Amino acid sequence: MKFSQEDFEKAREQLKLLKTDPGNQVKLNIYALFKQDSARQKYIELVSSLVAAESSQVEATPPGSKAAYETLEVSTKDNITKIVLNRPKVKNAISTKMYDEIVEALEEAAKDDSVITVFTGNGDYYCSGNDLNNFTNLPANGLEEMAKNSADMLKDFVDHFIDFPKPLIAVVNGPAVGIAVTLLGLFDVVYATDRATFHTPFSKLGQSPEGCSSYTFPKIMGVSKATEMLLFNKKLTAAEACSQGLVTEVFPDQVFQKEVWARLKAYGSLPKNSLALSKQLMRSMEKEKLHEVNSQECECLKGRWLSDECMNAIMSFFQKSKL
Amino acid sequence: MKFSQEDFEKAREQLKLLKTDPGNQVKLNIYALFKQDSARQKYIELVSSLVAAESSQVEATPPGSKAAYETLEVSTKDNITKIVLNRPKVKNAISTKMYDEIVEALEEAAKDDSVITVFTGNGDYYCSGNDLNNFTNLPANGLEEMAKNSADMLKDFVDHFIDFPKPLIAVVNGPAVGIAVTLLGLFDVVYATDRATFHTPFSKLGQSPEGCSSYTFPKIMGVSKATEMLLFNKKLTAAEACSQGLVTEVFPDQVFQKEVWARLKAYGSLPKNSLALSKQLMRSMEKEKLHEVNSQECECLKGRWLSDECMNAIMSFFQKSKL
Amino acid sequence: MKFSQEDFEKAREQLKLLKTDPGNQVKLNIYALFKQDSARQKYIELVSSLVAAESSQVEATPPGSKAAYETLEVSTKDNITKIVLNRPKVKNAISTKMYDEIVEALEEAAKDDSVITVFTGNGDYYCSGNDLNNFTNLPANGLEEMAKNSADMLKDFVDHFIDFPKPLIAVVNGPAVGIAVTLLGLFDVVYATDRATFHTPFSKLGQSPEGCSSYTFPKIMGVSKATEMLLFNKKLTAAEACSQGLVTEVFPDQVFQKEVWARLKAYGSLPKNSLALSKQLMRSMEKEKLHEVNSQECECLKGRWLSDECMNAIMSFFQKSKL
Repeated sequence: MKFSQEDFEKAREQLKLLKTDPGNQVKLNIYALFKQDSARQKYIELVSSLVAAESSQVEATPPGSKAAYETLEVSTKDNITKIVLNRPKVKNAISTKMYDEIVEALEEAAKDDSVITVFTGNGDYYCSGNDLNNFTNLPANGLEEMAKNSADMLKDFVDHFIDFPKPLIAVVNGPAVGIAVTLLGLFDVVYATDRATFHTPFSKLGQSPEGCSSYTFPKIMGVSKATEMLLFNKKLTAAEACSQGLVTEVFPDQVFQKEVWARLKAYGSLPKNSLALSKQLMRSMEKEKLHEVNSQECECLKGRWLSDECMNAIMSFFQKSKL
Repeated sequence: MKFSQEDFEKAREQLKLLKTDPGNQVKLNIYALFKQDSARQKYIELVSSLVAAESSQVEATPPGSKAAYETLEVSTKDNITKIVLNRPKVKNAISTKMYDEIVEALEEAAKDDSVITVFTGNGDYYCSGNDLNNFTNLPANGLEEMAKNSADMLKDFVDHFIDFPKPLIAVVNGPAVGIAVTLLGLFDVVYATDRATFHTPFSKLGQSPEGCSSYTFPKIMGVSKATEMLLFNKKLTAAEACSQGLVTEVFPDQVFQKEVWARLKAYGSLPKNSLALSKQLMRSMEKEKLHEVNSQECECLKGRWLSDECMNAIMSFFQKSKL
Repeated sequence: MKFSQEDFEKAREQLKLLKTDPGNQVKLNIYALFKQDSARQKYIELVSSLVAAESSQVEATPPGSKAAYETLEVSTKDNITKIVLNRPKVKNAISTKMYDEIVEALEEAAKDDSVITVFTGNGDYYCSGNDLNNFTNLPANGLEEMAKNSADMLKDFVDHFIDFPKPLIAVVNGPAVGIAVTLLGLFDVVYATDRATFHTPFSKLGQSPEGCSSYTFPKIMGVSKATEMLLFNKKLTAAEACSQGLVTEVFPDQVFQKEVWARLKAYGSLPKNSLALSKQLMRSMEKEKLHEVNSQECECLKGRWLSDECMNAIMSFFQKSKL
């Protein structure tokens, strides 16, 4: 099934002319598809047939990698376990599959012989955040079940970052969005290229902060700068994120990989237990609080996902976007 | 009733010639009036008649404003409830009446349909802090009762800021002093003109910090910078306050109002519940602690107001001032 | 009753010399009257009537230093108790003796009449941290007993900083290393010469953070910058330490002593109890937590000192050093 640009435009027009509200379930599907240029075909299909069909992109795993991951590249060298977000075609958006694989990779890295664990992204983006397609696989009981499942998955995912026992370092190779930004508050060091940006446009979509950012961001940058990001959608440059303490250091893009990896190699040669214990000391006083915050945030988001406000904000957002 | 400069001078002379001591209550009233250049008229009246008659300054309420306030201008537009401190002749010093009216305005704003609530000042000052005249209305049981009443009023006042459920934004249009500064730690965003300054000269008067600043300031700027402000009376420029995280962003005075209100209008168009819930998430972990801090601070201040040290510090302060 | 300007000046002088407290009610009257040019007459009258009573002020502090210390120089002047680390030949490294004497000096300073307490170093260094010779006096039961004793001593030492009731100010006159750096998080103000550096190379020696830095540093500078210092041995310049909030202000070395002591003298003239209470308010919410952190850190270090990793790291460190 292949459709032309004209088919696509026609489908958009048809959508506008619909006289019966297709319902939240269908709107969610449309919304998810609408997000991706690459999903035009599916968008047309959906509007034409009202049938959602998902296909998973399988990339070949490079040599040197660990267990075969679909969405990640994971390897260990120089006492460093490196976890690469590997869906460059969709800006490393985190699909349900990737959520699961990150949890698995963290569990492996916690147990292996490495001294530090590093996250980075493949391609131009670090990570564009939650893949909106995740909302479109509606289970049998519809919205309510989807909201519950998503909240449960998110809670477990973030818990793995809270509990990770070794130094966790982000190598932010490009723009970061949504949960890829909020999670940085749970990393121990964050190095960024000067090309990186940091954006958490939650309220625009009627949603609310996750990844413990409602707690870590005010702690890191003060309530007022955290509010501009988390409530009022302010996008930070790498330099701003650094001066606010979210990023540890910024490097010119040309030397970014070289300089950062030289440092990481040095870190990897330090005494493993000393680093792990020091990290745990620093986090021990707030671990319980972080789990509590995570629960509250997920509970709040579950409510958001079921709210008219969230639905309307999403609709309004896409009506304003360029498509 | 309008009096000339000569009348004023004459009244001063008459006061000097008084042979019967008018009593402490009257002296305190005289002092309170004397504090204000603008109170010359009343000063003359008082000295002439030895009758303390307080007249309330009624300003015409502008179109679009809410309930009639004496000391505030409150209005709602573009989903923004704007609370303007409106005693420009005394640099928007917070009188007992203004404390009460702010509490009332916050209760109203919490319940109305607005998305965000904004505080600002009328005239050149944002707010010169607590009106020292508040200390001069000694109740029947004297100092102890005054201290107790003041502490109770302060606690209730600050509690309303702690519990305010929507994003609270300060538009700091000029210098801010004392409690007008400390409260900023309970605001969600603080925009300031480059003309603004931030000063909390508590220890100079033998007093101690309030508005939860003993907790919020160390959290925002670290203990050492907080100590310079709260213990050692350091006055910050707007740029310093911004780099320390107390102010979110500083604007040149010429474009201040225009740029800030353009942003606020954009914020006012965001989903109301999403913003309120996100704010509450950010504050929920510390709300209980903030109430505890507020109680401790008020208890401490009550003791301060009754201390010899506070009295002596006030004496010493005025001996050094120009007379 | 008419008084001249001279009478008025004389009354002001007399008031300053009063040795018996005239009581709060009288002070309030004086204060109220003093504010008013027109009330000069009454002011003079009132002060004249108070001048009668005289009592003697006891200035007991002998010129020069207090109790004889071996490793410190301790003196009180201008309401400031100054504790000088005085082992310049070994860069003021903290020997077991110095740990004990600092505890003693803090206990004295807490009780004396001073308003603030200041730490500084004699010579080019502020302090090079823990004297490694402390580890070489192995007691009868060898390593285990040494580790236990060291942890106990460290815990008690840090507890004295946590509990110190007055403003504690560090005048960092040169490089600071190890525990001399971590303790700064428990100081209320930190002034540094631009020659100062801040270095905590714990993990290089297989050790872990102390002085409550695993809690205070993330609070002051955010987790990520704290991690670079405490886990990855990053040495900060004075300017970096200031921009991260660990240092309150940096001064050019040529004017450092002069400018800092001018400020400290001003601080020493502020109301003593007001400062102490304000400091305690700022610390009260976290005191219990700080003691808990201190215990955890000492427990962790005790384990570190007995670990192969620590021993190997120390061996490796010395093999790489000048040998």
